[in-house]
Amino acid sequence: MDKERFEKQIKFILEADKEKSIFRQTHLSDGSRQENDAEHAWHMAIMIYLLKEYSNREIDLGKAMMMALIHDIVEIDAGDTYAYDEENLKTQKEREEKAAERIFGILPDDQCDELKSLFREFEEFETPESRFVHAMDNLQPLLLNDANNGGDWRSHNVKRSQITKRQSTTALGSEEIGNYAMDLVKKNINNGNIIDE
Amino acid sequence: MDKERFEKQIKFILEADKEKSIFRQTHLSDGSRQENDAEHAWHMAIMIYLLKEYSNREIDLGKAMMMALIHDIVEIDAGDTYAYDEENLKTQKEREEKAAERIFGILPDDQCDELKSLFREFEEFETPESRFVHAMDNLQPLLLNDANNGGDWRSHNVKRSQITKRQSTTALGSEEIGNYAMDLVKKNINNGNIIDE
Repeated sequence: MDKERFEKQIKFILEADKEKSIFRQTHLSDGSRQENDAEHAWHMAIMIYLLKEYSNREIDLGKAMMMALIHDIVEIDAGDTYAYDEENLKTQKEREEKAAERIFGILPDDQCDELKSLFREFEEFETPESRFVHAMDNLQPLLLNDANNGGDWRSHNVKRSQITKRQSTTALGSEEIGNYAMDLVKKNINNGNIIDE
Repeated sequence: MDKERFEKQIKFILEADKEKSIFRQTHLSDGSRQENDAEHAWHMAIMIYLLKEYSNREIDLGKAMMMALIHDIVEIDAGDTYAYDEENLKTQKEREEKAAERIFGILPDDQCDELKSLFREFEEFETPESRFVHAMDNLQPLLLNDANNGGDWRSHNVKRSQITKRQSTTALGSEEIGNYAMDLVKKNINNGNIIDE
């Protein structure tokens, strides 16, 4: 064992622990509390495994799961940016790139490059894995919000155009899940949880 | 899309959300609060990806990661059983088997069988994936307890023999990580966090 290499890996693993303290706007399905980034990523990775048959294109399972598990790790430095917070969305990319350099930089060089590349692949939204992981990143909070009676949408006055714009990308990863997501959105427009314009 | 199949998958995904409310005895590395099962599993899956080079035998990455992600899902019904709680350990297997039947039974038959089989493979502790996932299940709380100054060991009066027994299985998944774990145990015996008998 290369001690120096192993110590860098352990240091990164302990740094990642901080992601459990980054809270999202989304509440759990029972509405009891906000969800944190680590739980969100765990849920997404399970969804990737179970729903992979609906991906538009074939995906490398281990790669897609790891992409989901680490896609929000930059928020340890950059914080959570709410999907409908226009002001913070402007600076999100710059803040997250800087965070990626510092946090993945803790790892040995080869794994630093591998994880930075996986994170950027997610951001670039081109590959089958990236598109399917994004579809899960959209579907997961949609399922929770729908289950907790739309509390998160109502407290943020989320409008039809905002959520339709976001969910329109779901179909790029999975047409079938994209259709399902749009049905859930319509249901929540009809029952008043999402503002119809 | 087979609607009935998809609805079973979504129902399971929402059921799994409850794992975020099952809290472990282990505290986060900063000691601020107890960790829940979903966060623990997320952390383990990342560790599997990053530390796989130390596995005694080659592992299927996607399989090992999914095994880690779902290994505690039975605790939604069976609750968390602390590693050093002798009384509850006696009934753990029976409680968890019953929970596996109900929870994985929500899924379509093929995925129910697949996940039950993955869970049982983890429990049986024979395959390379199972042994490496167990090694991570031992190492992850060890790292957190060491980082938070051994608070969990001290509050439960954990003894050398208890922790040595548990950590002796780490080497079955990875000899190198097993050695590292034993060094961390010794350090925490020397500084009084673990009771020397």
